[in-house]
Amino acid sequence: MSENGALPHRGKVLTVDTMNANVKKVDYAVRGPIVQRAVQIEKELKEGVKKPFEEVIKANIGDAHAMGQRPITFFRQVMALCTYPQLLDDSKFPEDAKNRARRILQSCGGNSIGAYTTSQGIDCVRHDVANYIQRRDGGIPSDPDNIYLTTGASDGIVTILKLLTAGEGRTRTGIMISIPQYPLYSASVAELGAVQVNYYLNEEKCWSLDISELQRSLQAAREHCNPRVLCIINPGNPTGQVQSRQCIEDVIRFAAKENLFLMADEVYQDNVYAEGCAFHSFKKVLFEMGPEYSSKVELASFHSTSKCYMGECGFRGGYMEVINMDPEVKAQLTKLVSVRLCPPAPGQALMDLVVNSPQPGEPSYQTFMKERTAVLSALAEKAKLTEEILNTVPGISCNPVQGAMYSFPRITLPERAINEAKAKDQAPDMFYCMKLLEETGICLVPGSGFGQREGTYHFRE
Amino acid sequence: MSENGALPHRGKVLTVDTMNANVKKVDYAVRGPIVQRAVQIEKELKEGVKKPFEEVIKANIGDAHAMGQRPITFFRQVMALCTYPQLLDDSKFPEDAKNRARRILQSCGGNSIGAYTTSQGIDCVRHDVANYIQRRDGGIPSDPDNIYLTTGASDGIVTILKLLTAGEGRTRTGIMISIPQYPLYSASVAELGAVQVNYYLNEEKCWSLDISELQRSLQAAREHCNPRVLCIINPGNPTGQVQSRQCIEDVIRFAAKENLFLMADEVYQDNVYAEGCAFHSFKKVLFEMGPEYSSKVELASFHSTSKCYMGECGFRGGYMEVINMDPEVKAQLTKLVSVRLCPPAPGQALMDLVVNSPQPGEPSYQTFMKERTAVLSALAEKAKLTEEILNTVPGISCNPVQGAMYSFPRITLPERAINEAKAKDQAPDMFYCMKLLEETGICLVPGSGFGQREGTYHFRE
Repeated sequence: MSENGALPHRGKVLTVDTMNANVKKVDYAVRGPIVQRAVQIEKELKEGVKKPFEEVIKANIGDAHAMGQRPITFFRQVMALCTYPQLLDDSKFPEDAKNRARRILQSCGGNSIGAYTTSQGIDCVRHDVANYIQRRDGGIPSDPDNIYLTTGASDGIVTILKLLTAGEGRTRTGIMISIPQYPLYSASVAELGAVQVNYYLNEEKCWSLDISELQRSLQAAREHCNPRVLCIINPGNPTGQVQSRQCIEDVIRFAAKENLFLMADEVYQDNVYAEGCAFHSFKKVLFEMGPEYSSKVELASFHSTSKCYMGECGFRGGYMEVINMDPEVKAQLTKLVSVRLCPPAPGQALMDLVVNSPQPGEPSYQTFMKERTAVLSALAEKAKLTEEILNTVPGISCNPVQGAMYSFPRITLPERAINEAKAKDQAPDMFYCMKLLEETGICLVPGSGFGQREGTYHFRE
Repeated sequence: MSENGALPHRGKVLTVDTMNANVKKVDYAVRGPIVQRAVQIEKELKEGVKKPFEEVIKANIGDAHAMGQRPITFFRQVMALCTYPQLLDDSKFPEDAKNRARRILQSCGGNSIGAYTTSQGIDCVRHDVANYIQRRDGGIPSDPDNIYLTTGASDGIVTILKLLTAGEGRTRTGIMISIPQYPLYSASVAELGAVQVNYYLNEEKCWSLDISELQRSLQAAREHCNPRVLCIINPGNPTGQVQSRQCIEDVIRFAAKENLFLMADEVYQDNVYAEGCAFHSFKKVLFEMGPEYSSKVELASFHSTSKCYMGECGFRGGYMEVINMDPEVKAQLTKLVSVRLCPPAPGQALMDLVVNSPQPGEPSYQTFMKERTAVLSALAEKAKLTEEILNTVPGISCNPVQGAMYSFPRITLPERAINEAKAKDQAPDMFYCMKLLEETGICLVPGSGFGQREGTYHFRE
């Protein structure tokens, strides 16, 4: 205070000029300006403003329940039992649901899902995850001590990237990400102040990954940073490709040769639609390549409750498995996750159900399989339809959607539109998507939000 | 690969020498070595190892349900209804619980708690939080646009600290925290690479906060960093003091004069036990000080579902309210939280119930109040007993526990014990707590994990 007691007129403590500079660099397209405009239009519609459409269709994010997909009955039954255990006496609930709930509650402090769990996640859930991975990968062992439950897959991915970010200037950690990519990666790299290293997927070959392109990208990056991490999304987001076993082997060989830490984002592992395509986990391929690789290559792989047939994004459930992580680093990881105490317990419980779903002979098995199959068939049907319809539109060409939940069609924009966009200082595909939103109410995220080769334009649907 | 095809023998990509150096500096006592040893002892007991006790009592963390506190029935009923809406037809559930569930579900995409919510949190929940704050603070307005739902309070605190961390060397952000403090603060400051600035609470005056000590601490910090943030925990953790209205006013005046961003951790706002003590929110005091302050001082305050009478830690629900935040910074905050998509929807729903609990006339009101009062009375009773019993033990002296859920008694250690500890390279109170754990099974966190004046020793119970 000045002598006369009045406060001096200083500005804010926290301004865009004095805030964390890395945070300013963060860009997150799937919830960016186009989505903000969509929310605004929704409000305008509610207030009675006339538009050429009656509702906004938000195709900006893979949010199955919001688009009308129904939750899996068994999952919600068990979650209700865990939440309100008085229901365990209710004959309306099947025995297998009750058994799952009892088992989860016994693993919780005070038998309550409201207690903190251990930071790494509920013991029995981590065991179930390990068993699931082992079954999925044809018997290759999985150790519950290598499983960390997470707050959605995003949380796990950011945590591993955080551990890996070190150095300054030319020794700063470089993180190799595919272009196009899911913008969580570029956003986290920016926030951590790491260096984004782009490698381009081959649109001409159905968005496949070429080792020669990895090599080019790595070589170029080594001029200015220390590339240490290779991130792969398989099945691909936003591009919907499914990697062949051969490609995964080549990637692992490349990572081993070049001493890169591998991060495999496998949240769409049940979403494979195209004939002749199958999901191969990086873990499985790594171990099938023999001890020279399986004892050496450091790998973290990620899964969540948000996609596949369950689509339970709101619960923020997920796990990661770390392979060949240095034991001292693992201790640091365990310490780091303990600062946030624990992932949400309901999300952990839901993750348990995904990896420990009803088995043949259990009362809920048939309903569960019926619901699961119905969702996956509908998604496969939509994937095919999307590709077919898009390819009938002049100026749009779309690769087959082999998996995941999106297509990433290429659009040819007339010179005039490109110039108009540039005059507005907008990316041409942002201009296109904005126009589409204003005229039809359909909200798509432009390709520029995911990254694309210079001079090409796309959107994600 | 080398010419003959064998892989070169390089070391790990990620080692403690090449990992994020800030993460290495993170220390988190409430889940640190003593807790790891407690978990180990629990395993040994299960395996039949003989000990002088039969079970480990984990008093390392405020985890009410794990210690036997029962969840509030109404909260769990609504959560079950939100999770499994088929129960809305069940006559066992009261109408007010059904109404709350219907209202929350109507605010969710596809009426499912499994959909992503908006990044800032479900609209109707943010409105209810704002109404709650307004009621609590005697009508001082609260704007839902200033409310951000969070993954527990920790998440909100880390997010605001992240925004505030900038500069290098002598301009690096300094963050003022109380000593003793809740170690989330020191851990986050280390992880962000900010500068920890300690101010000491006055143990002789029941852990009160002296402005002269704030001034001393600030002055000293300005020699080597840029202190911009003042963090306050009220009611105090681990020290259990409740700040007087006068003290809060003084702190606000100090923050205004010295241009500090205020962070008020108010997660124990319902946990006030001592005669003559009352909870005063920083927001309320700020606005009662008139426009000179209320239009200027930047404040973020935090609350959660984890403490008070509900103790629902596992759901990771919470909110923060930001006051006088620069609009451009707020846009950056909204962008930043969008990268994690959304806080867990069940935690958001639970937060709603905390701020929108049963009202007189509603069917659940009486049971709710009975349960709430029983929990708070039991906690008050325990607070008094703890203080009384501890003060009968020679060598232990304990301040009155005015609020929150902990006491932080001072222990006088014999010279011999101090020397023995030092020979083992252990903090003397860590040595004491470890011995207590091995001999009695009681797991306490030593004062050194929270910080204390040089030469004094404590534990948190």
